[in-house]
Amino acid sequence: MSKGTIVMKFGGTSVADAGRLKRAAGRIVRRREEGYRVVAVLSARGKETDRLVADAFEVSPDPDPREMDMLLSTGERVSCALCAMAINDLGHRAISLTGSQAGIVTDTSHTKARILDVRAERIFDALDGDNIVLVAGFQGVSTAKDVTTLGRGGSDTTAVALAAAVGAEVCEIYTDVSGVFSADPRIVPDARKLDVVSFEEMLEMSASGAGVLQLRSVEYARNHGVRIHCRSSFDDAPGTVVVSEQETMEHPLITAVTHSTGEARVTLMGVPDTPGAAGRIATALADANVNVDMIIQNEPITEGSRADMSFTVPRDDVRAARAALEPLQAEIGIGDVATDESMGKVSIIGAGMKTHPGVAAKVFTVLGDHGINIEMISTSPIKISCVIPGDRVPDAVRALHAAFELSGDDTIRPEQPFGQFAS
Amino acid sequence: MSKGTIVMKFGGTSVADAGRLKRAAGRIVRRREEGYRVVAVLSARGKETDRLVADAFEVSPDPDPREMDMLLSTGERVSCALCAMAINDLGHRAISLTGSQAGIVTDTSHTKARILDVRAERIFDALDGDNIVLVAGFQGVSTAKDVTTLGRGGSDTTAVALAAAVGAEVCEIYTDVSGVFSADPRIVPDARKLDVVSFEEMLEMSASGAGVLQLRSVEYARNHGVRIHCRSSFDDAPGTVVVSEQETMEHPLITAVTHSTGEARVTLMGVPDTPGAAGRIATALADANVNVDMIIQNEPITEGSRADMSFTVPRDDVRAARAALEPLQAEIGIGDVATDESMGKVSIIGAGMKTHPGVAAKVFTVLGDHGINIEMISTSPIKISCVIPGDRVPDAVRALHAAFELSGDDTIRPEQPFGQFAS
Repeated sequence: MSKGTIVMKFGGTSVADAGRLKRAAGRIVRRREEGYRVVAVLSARGKETDRLVADAFEVSPDPDPREMDMLLSTGERVSCALCAMAINDLGHRAISLTGSQAGIVTDTSHTKARILDVRAERIFDALDGDNIVLVAGFQGVSTAKDVTTLGRGGSDTTAVALAAAVGAEVCEIYTDVSGVFSADPRIVPDARKLDVVSFEEMLEMSASGAGVLQLRSVEYARNHGVRIHCRSSFDDAPGTVVVSEQETMEHPLITAVTHSTGEARVTLMGVPDTPGAAGRIATALADANVNVDMIIQNEPITEGSRADMSFTVPRDDVRAARAALEPLQAEIGIGDVATDESMGKVSIIGAGMKTHPGVAAKVFTVLGDHGINIEMISTSPIKISCVIPGDRVPDAVRALHAAFELSGDDTIRPEQPFGQFAS
Repeated sequence: MSKGTIVMKFGGTSVADAGRLKRAAGRIVRRREEGYRVVAVLSARGKETDRLVADAFEVSPDPDPREMDMLLSTGERVSCALCAMAINDLGHRAISLTGSQAGIVTDTSHTKARILDVRAERIFDALDGDNIVLVAGFQGVSTAKDVTTLGRGGSDTTAVALAAAVGAEVCEIYTDVSGVFSADPRIVPDARKLDVVSFEEMLEMSASGAGVLQLRSVEYARNHGVRIHCRSSFDDAPGTVVVSEQETMEHPLITAVTHSTGEARVTLMGVPDTPGAAGRIATALADANVNVDMIIQNEPITEGSRADMSFTVPRDDVRAARAALEPLQAEIGIGDVATDESMGKVSIIGAGMKTHPGVAAKVFTVLGDHGINIEMISTSPIKISCVIPGDRVPDAVRALHAAFELSGDDTIRPEQPFGQFAS
């Protein structure tokens, strides 16, 4: 029993029914029997969170965020209590803890709280008492002592934060897919599993639509040096390890194509060309917790005239964005606010891109050759994203995946063959 | 706003769907608009607790009690969060609190915890801040900082305990029936609603099967002088007020006939006639939290021989009773343990019984005239209970209700007509 601590996180599909929940319990117990101290983080079962959200909207058109958190936090508690029962039946001691009991302290930003501190004393006590510790994901307790939630996908962040707090060797994220792929296999059947990706690449992938890991959890892992292993809860094959760039050793030109079909474009007509107008708009959106992705402002033709400003937001944030902008319309004199909820986004990510110009040109050419109109573009040193019509997203993903030859062993690599990719 | 505080408790059927939940929210708001400070206690919605229990047994044949509490406590939290949303939509401020947040401190007896203390500071703060406070019923936090539940029907106890802690004028218990009846109206259609009953009568009624109020809540109310008003959540008619015996003023000979069909008889064959054997048995059952009702031990015929001992327990406790007795069988030399889960019980209750002998004789005669076999009998100064075959319970209830003329204005009263009974 001299081994270290492992954090294991199971998503909603991995605990959706009694059979799967018991299988997760079995995996947890196996790690314990290997000698590790185990902390497991569980999500709400299957569609439980959706059910609770529907219950809320049946009662209220605009549910109070504090109460929404009280409501939604129950889903993960149910999973943990049930899993603890199953583990106890397997002859091991397990106790479930709420986020609050686990010491996950957050700010007071209900439904999108951020973790401020992890006070893991109770977890350590339970581990010292030879318990497997199950922690309800996605939630914490605010500095005002209210239950908070971390936003959808927040259980990944819970797991990584706990892994950092307890000094875990690895944070294993168990999901219904076997790792991180070069593209969504539902769109590109010959997409391949990546054995290793860097935090930087994973950040860009999560930010641009790869659903396998939540963006904030990857940020947190990078900032705290937590090793993530993303793998399937349904088999024992190794998945994808997310590590620091130094550890990846090799840098393929392009690692993956990601996409999102849940984008909306908001266009503000006739924004006055006065200093501070854009700042006011951005502040209002940030205060409303709206995640603005790309922003474009076309230059006014003559001095003192007006410009149009467009930005993209997740489709779920359109309502909040409109509400945040409404008071500004009269105040700073904006014309109409138009929204288009049919937008999508396709991105290519690769650490090798940094040292290889010409990737952007190839992306635009490929999309152009397929008659796909590019509405907005944004780039980072290791990513190129294009906003395109939502209905063309699958075509764009397939075209780029093929053009950059990501499916086979013939992946374009700037330095040398990336051996561990052979699957 | 010079009025006092009211505690309102809504049962599961009163919050079962969005429409009912909003109606409960409306009633709560109305009390607030009348000027009262309002604390509302909610149960889990409809069949939610049953659903969670089923989930547990799907995962484990013998769910861990600590985890069962973590699981079941979520049901009331959901109700409170949803109700707070509905109240906020009605233009009032409401916040929901878990049992733990509400300061309900219990012992560590999971699934049947007892309230040790109510630390209501957070409730007072919220009330002072002009909030309606919603508290999740049925639960608390143990001295070991674990979530506990108070057993089925525990939300009544939560409500009464809070009413005592905040010095409420009244604890209103809203249910799907319009008050306490002279018998179960499903069995006796002309049973009538009682306007007032004494704590003592209500205690006996709750203990003997009247489901409308949980026994412990009535005990707690009597011990702390909390006035209970038991009424319908579906109309505005006054229900039944439970008050001290002095306040009832009048004492009908018989107030009500109650019954239970969930009884089981456990018989221990050949219990050695040694000092302490019965005590050991009773202790083992008490340690297992088995509620033993009646006990009969037939005298051994010759000194040093063995006797049979029978007792009744709620049918749900049979498993626990068997488990508790098993180690004793070898240890003190008990023969077989036989159980009969088809038992029922019928009781008549009335404060006037104290001063009027002959009631018991009449009960036995009535049951005998209807060919109903009495298996066991127990009495208190204001109650006579008979264990009978479960399938004869409805006949027995109807026969006794008729024989004691409880349905009309011609109820037998020792002193004077009990005017407020006219409904």
